[in-house]
Amino acid sequence: MNTTQLHQQILRKKSFLCVGLDSELKKIPAHLKSEKNPIFAFNKAIVDATAPYSVAYKPNLAFYEAEGVEGWLQLEKTVAYIREKYPEIFIIADAKRGDIGNTSKLYAEAFFKSMNLDAVTLSPYMGRDTVQPFLEYEDKWAVLLALTSNSSSADFEQLQLSNGKKLYEQVLETSKTWGNIDNTMYVVGATKAEMLREIRQMIPDHFLLVHGVGEQGGSLDEVAKYGLNSRCGLLVNSSRGVIFADSSENFAKVAGEKAQELQQQMAKYL
Amino acid sequence: MNTTQLHQQILRKKSFLCVGLDSELKKIPAHLKSEKNPIFAFNKAIVDATAPYSVAYKPNLAFYEAEGVEGWLQLEKTVAYIREKYPEIFIIADAKRGDIGNTSKLYAEAFFKSMNLDAVTLSPYMGRDTVQPFLEYEDKWAVLLALTSNSSSADFEQLQLSNGKKLYEQVLETSKTWGNIDNTMYVVGATKAEMLREIRQMIPDHFLLVHGVGEQGGSLDEVAKYGLNSRCGLLVNSSRGVIFADSSENFAKVAGEKAQELQQQMAKYL
Repeated sequence: MNTTQLHQQILRKKSFLCVGLDSELKKIPAHLKSEKNPIFAFNKAIVDATAPYSVAYKPNLAFYEAEGVEGWLQLEKTVAYIREKYPEIFIIADAKRGDIGNTSKLYAEAFFKSMNLDAVTLSPYMGRDTVQPFLEYEDKWAVLLALTSNSSSADFEQLQLSNGKKLYEQVLETSKTWGNIDNTMYVVGATKAEMLREIRQMIPDHFLLVHGVGEQGGSLDEVAKYGLNSRCGLLVNSSRGVIFADSSENFAKVAGEKAQELQQQMAKYL
Repeated sequence: MNTTQLHQQILRKKSFLCVGLDSELKKIPAHLKSEKNPIFAFNKAIVDATAPYSVAYKPNLAFYEAEGVEGWLQLEKTVAYIREKYPEIFIIADAKRGDIGNTSKLYAEAFFKSMNLDAVTLSPYMGRDTVQPFLEYEDKWAVLLALTSNSSSADFEQLQLSNGKKLYEQVLETSKTWGNIDNTMYVVGATKAEMLREIRQMIPDHFLLVHGVGEQGGSLDEVAKYGLNSRCGLLVNSSRGVIFADSSENFAKVAGEKAQELQQQMAKYL
């Protein structure tokens, strides 16, 4: 999916919500656990309930790999279901991969060709080699970790370099020259709103994938205030706050309501 | 596997060779491609031929994920085969994962419990949260990326910090306090032998997983000279140079010979 298609979807749905499909088997409602493919059954119901309010889904691969072959199968089923029923929706593999060139090339093939996903999250630690293969696909996206929302982002991401910049700032400066605003996004934590403002000054035109609104204490108001740009430029992720809002047989209906609440707040800023 | 068991195996086999099972479907010998599980058939033959000379295997997950469910299944079969036939061998998932705490916890469960692997490679970018869950398993190992052998390791890993250290040096300094020498290893590139000497001064007692000997121009002599410690402290990886040394029906025999050559060189240093 290209930027124009993504932006059009955002304007049509008046939403920049990304729903994180962190569909841990242990946490899905009890009544689904006897299904043949419980994670897929859960995702299907969640997607049907939230698709009117969401522009993107983001399965975190850990929750599928944890179930081995069975989990991987249910991830493939989930992606195929979204692709068929909601072809306008942007799908991000939250994989946080990063490997040397020939290996990254294979990951890119797996995620972009075999699975037909739109985007993959990547760790920048090993440098350009690890990102380049993902930038060679048309209308596909590399989503680089920049400043994450976890507390230990201070350990390395926020270290001060000898040139006065912080590491995550240097990651932005260096990596923005590898691709362009139509194939590169950045992961930014909503819990660091002041930093978001500075990040926006450094990369005014890139899309940001923002984590930590609600669940980790980040404020949608502040994210919108500092993060929006002329093409929206934001995908704000919510995972547990939407998909695990209710654990009864009503779970999908409640997830839909939570997604709608977020969409209605987002509509005010668009 | 604990340090003593690993060290004993090293002494018994007079080898610190780790064979990288980068078993890309496209590259395996043509005559295997009609097998039901061609990657597993390839790995099985490679393992049988190289096990007398190797103390560890390291499947890079990219090459399995590239084949989706089928690839994952063949990875599981490979690990089960090694575990059953060669229980003394150390198995590392080259996954380069790194995610927030609850997600890392799940990855740790998947790799250590479900798949019964000994070690997982991890990216340090997001800090301690991402590593901690892997350190909570007895006789299991977190293998952190420190200084990798790819050319773009200069982009970020080698950046100078305001305290005078390079980023990879700070990664070593900080992360060595999270665990201990019995549950933490580091990935170091063999192409940077001078740096290996300095790394050994900073972490005299940790095991290092060294990439890039042969294939990427690193020298085993220099790695041994700078890297060995009282418990050996080295696992030197070779992937393509062993497993793809020959593409005929003789591939396994030739792989065994290549592994033996490396083992014989290693024996001199032990």
